Amino acid sequence: MSAGDLAEGVLRGEVRAVARAISLVENAGPGLRALTEELVKGMREPYRARVVGLTGAPGVGKSTSTGTLIEAARARGERVAVLAVDPSSPFTGGALLGDRVRMQAHATDPGVFIRSMATRGHLGGLAWAAPQAIRVLDAAGYDLILVETVGVGQAEVDIASLADSTIVLLAPGMGDSVQAAKAGILEIADVFVVNKADRDGAQETVRDLRNMVALSGSRDWRPPIVSTVAARGEGAADLVAALDRHAEHLAASGEGRARRLARARDEIEAIVLTGLRARMGEISGDRHLDALAEALLAAKTDPYRAADQVIAAL
Amino acid sequence: MSAGDLAEGVLRGEVRAVARAISLVENAGPGLRALTEELVKGMREPYRARVVGLTGAPGVGKSTSTGTLIEAARARGERVAVLAVDPSSPFTGGALLGDRVRMQAHATDPGVFIRSMATRGHLGGLAWAAPQAIRVLDAAGYDLILVETVGVGQAEVDIASLADSTIVLLAPGMGDSVQAAKAGILEIADVFVVNKADRDGAQETVRDLRNMVALSGSRDWRPPIVSTVAARGEGAADLVAALDRHAEHLAASGEGRARRLARARDEIEAIVLTGLRARMGEISGDRHLDALAEALLAAKTDPYRAADQVIAAL
Repeated sequence: MSAGDLAEGVLRGEVRAVARAISLVENAGPGLRALTEELVKGMREPYRARVVGLTGAPGVGKSTSTGTLIEAARARGERVAVLAVDPSSPFTGGALLGDRVRMQAHATDPGVFIRSMATRGHLGGLAWAAPQAIRVLDAAGYDLILVETVGVGQAEVDIASLADSTIVLLAPGMGDSVQAAKAGILEIADVFVVNKADRDGAQETVRDLRNMVALSGSRDWRPPIVSTVAARGEGAADLVAALDRHAEHLAASGEGRARRLARARDEIEAIVLTGLRARMGEISGDRHLDALAEALLAAKTDPYRAADQVIAAL
Repeated sequence: MSAGDLAEGVLRGEVRAVARAISLVENAGPGLRALTEELVKGMREPYRARVVGLTGAPGVGKSTSTGTLIEAARARGERVAVLAVDPSSPFTGGALLGDRVRMQAHATDPGVFIRSMATRGHLGGLAWAAPQAIRVLDAAGYDLILVETVGVGQAEVDIASLADSTIVLLAPGMGDSVQAAKAGILEIADVFVVNKADRDGAQETVRDLRNMVALSGSRDWRPPIVSTVAARGEGAADLVAALDRHAEHLAASGEGRARRLARARDEIEAIVLTGLRARMGEISGDRHLDALAEALLAAKTDPYRAADQVIAAL
């Protein structure tokens, strides 16, 4: 299939074309560049879809909460795409969706597209792949794109820089609030969700979060803290309302446009760096780098001098 | 203090100089390059220290296990450095060590150096900073360098590429085995530790791991699975023995040298990429990138074309 045909399929919202285009992103396949050109040409309103990031530790209820958000969006007649990003899959090639029973309830709904994506280590990773996958979904006309990621660490930061709104999920009794402070998620959260709010310790988690949010004070958007029991659908309306208020804030303050600009900037940077890295492999050659590494091991050079030689060879 | 003086202090193993040199790495301060040159010149045997990575989800007992390893090494008369890497700290500037009661037992032992390190997002991150911090500790004559990191994801992969041996910690009843498979930690573990082995489900966790290790089959080193109750010191001898066997395997198979070469290679690459990124900022200029991002938002360019323009400007 030509890039033009594939792009047309995506722009018509055909699920198969969308899946194929995302695979092209995932594998950095040939034709991705041509596809991207065609998509940009063909999109009536780029950056139209609302991108919501969803993150939290394993077991906190991300998939169930995603299910809740899908239901709410479908009830409004919106088309929804879910991108489950597995930042740990350079090795496994990860199939994240196996255990997502709740989400599979939507597998037969043509208005819902669910896809897991591995972000392989040898490319630019999440920062490279995710904005391109989001473009495909945006081009396909999805109104809401939920980007879900696991774990604590850099992936969250990357997700936050992609999303219009970022939801950070916690659950009681996981030592969350301390972990939250550690992980810097306070700074990335636009909305906090304390899920499994029927469990012991939920109120303490909410209180701890509230204190931390109050202390962090400086931003003009103070992240609301929503209590949910996602498995029973409790708190769903509150979460949707909180997201809506954040969307209004983004529009009114100009922050929304600023975030989209930053996303565009990050995407360009990631493509530049990945391109340079590829060129480093080609021009300077594996052998050159190996020889420099040998010299470093033998203390015949230092890493900065070695790096200079690689750059000079570029 | 000049780079030469600082390097001399590090090479004499002075704690204050070591701490200062690691801050220089952490902040990518001026003089880091000169310090590195002096260290490389002054080291009698570079890449001498044994680097052991330690990773696992929050709450699994990493700090306690690190304490166990410190004790065992001290009993052998080895000097030990602990580098606690917080990959999530572009925002917080992380102070990971606050809750490390067990480790603080060693705070007054002059043969033990403990340090947390933030790896800020705007630099090359962990891949850039960690090997340089390890060089400082190696130059200061520590025999064992324990690199500890939190979370699931890219950080683990990075740690594994730094370390001679990587320990992956699990605990029963955290849905570990499934999470382990997801996170690709099977591939990075040289030794598995099932900590809190006195808890319910420990045997199941061990059994699940054993099955997975058996299935992954292809490597010539099959990661042993050690059960510990680190809080009571149980299993410590088994863990040390497993690490010793792995060290023998590394030496006998040539894998040890291959890993050090890969570490040197990765360090050079990280310095190259960080250098190019910095140059991208300087030459092409923030305004140029902003203008390209604006064009992307307006669909007047595509990200690949924009990236070409940035590269051309370099």
